[in-house]
Amino acid sequence: MSSPGHLFGVGVGPGDPELMSVKAARLIASTRTIAFFAARGHPGIAHRVAAGLLTREHREIRIDYPVTVEPRESLSVAYEQLLAQCYDAAATRLEQELSGGNDVVVLCEGDPFFYGSYMYLHSRLARRFPTTVVPGISSLAAGAAAIAQPLACGNEVLSVLSGVLPESELVAGLRSCSAAVIIKLGRNLERVRQAVAAAGLLGRAFYVEHASSPAQVCCALADADASRAPYFSMVVIPSAAACSR
Amino acid sequence: MSSPGHLFGVGVGPGDPELMSVKAARLIASTRTIAFFAARGHPGIAHRVAAGLLTREHREIRIDYPVTVEPRESLSVAYEQLLAQCYDAAATRLEQELSGGNDVVVLCEGDPFFYGSYMYLHSRLARRFPTTVVPGISSLAAGAAAIAQPLACGNEVLSVLSGVLPESELVAGLRSCSAAVIIKLGRNLERVRQAVAAAGLLGRAFYVEHASSPAQVCCALADADASRAPYFSMVVIPSAAACSR
Repeated sequence: MSSPGHLFGVGVGPGDPELMSVKAARLIASTRTIAFFAARGHPGIAHRVAAGLLTREHREIRIDYPVTVEPRESLSVAYEQLLAQCYDAAATRLEQELSGGNDVVVLCEGDPFFYGSYMYLHSRLARRFPTTVVPGISSLAAGAAAIAQPLACGNEVLSVLSGVLPESELVAGLRSCSAAVIIKLGRNLERVRQAVAAAGLLGRAFYVEHASSPAQVCCALADADASRAPYFSMVVIPSAAACSR
Repeated sequence: MSSPGHLFGVGVGPGDPELMSVKAARLIASTRTIAFFAARGHPGIAHRVAAGLLTREHREIRIDYPVTVEPRESLSVAYEQLLAQCYDAAATRLEQELSGGNDVVVLCEGDPFFYGSYMYLHSRLARRFPTTVVPGISSLAAGAAAIAQPLACGNEVLSVLSGVLPESELVAGLRSCSAAVIIKLGRNLERVRQAVAAAGLLGRAFYVEHASSPAQVCCALADADASRAPYFSMVVIPSAAACSR
């Protein structure tokens, strides 16, 4: 019996292929079996970032991620069940590869352990197969670079919040930190903007979408068009104090 | 008169040179003037990460960072003044280069805008010279990879706290999030550990130092040796819920 394959959760960074790490690029180029998540009907963000490294020698395993039209999808039990089934099926598929001795690279947008789908494969497979996680540049860092302002400095508290949270929880979260990033906007943008305004932070809040990619959009949150914000957009509220030394 | 040089704030990632982005590696290799911060008497973390790319063709500008023996250094006014003088002098030095038409790469450990010293040069120079910030992999992501556990998922609140904060503020910060990273440990480790215990989180808190480098240390926070923690170590308290789907 051959020894089992190695599972690699590889962060490909926020969008610009050049923001992939040297290690990620090496592992993608040298591993034959490449898996990635993609929303049904879409090419997949992580796949698009890595596309320049993929050749005919690669074997691609696409994992279709179920799509919901509900604005606050993760509060829906039915959608949670759909997701769990998706992760179960994907883990079974990768298990076949790993058991057969094939290494597998899972492409992850941003960083694998920072709100990423990879963690649900990791939890199902890492106890049984040798596993390495390669960290990546998160949308957090790309968002700060996009607005060209420091995110946090000194002894400030930086919080990452989800746009899916109710307005009251967003306001409380914003009030207990010095700088914040709100991820998972999409249809939540208008409610998020109200929370940011209620916390008195609209004056220094930015809207960023597709950070670091050619499609990057970056403007004051007050001016953002709530009718078209993608899920992978974010609000960046940089430190007010940063740079004051 | 020649056109001014371009200032690049380049994140070199958490320690492993292979975790530098392809873009960072390209800019370092192709830019002649390389600046970096280093604590007096030490080689400098960012410089060590990039050392394999530096040749005799490069001209290095070392910026000596003043060192303090006070445990909660950033609460000291005298030390704040020392730092401001250091940044002023460094900005003046880089200004000479940029005014003379030379591009300058400032090497930054982790990500330039995530609690980094680069931001104090940025604030002094970015209004007068063309500037680009290249995001990097933060110690946050490297810490989660080191403990091989997801940091945060779903709609959880993730907070980044400074070990310099008083115990009561640390406890309050820890109580208002689902997952946390506490940076800037050093001599603050024992107080941080007390705060983590007071928040009821000692059972799932990890201590990580030199994440991603050959010198990486990773253990339960309960077992960490407080007498030798470097400043660039951290506590990682991953989500309790992550991976439960």
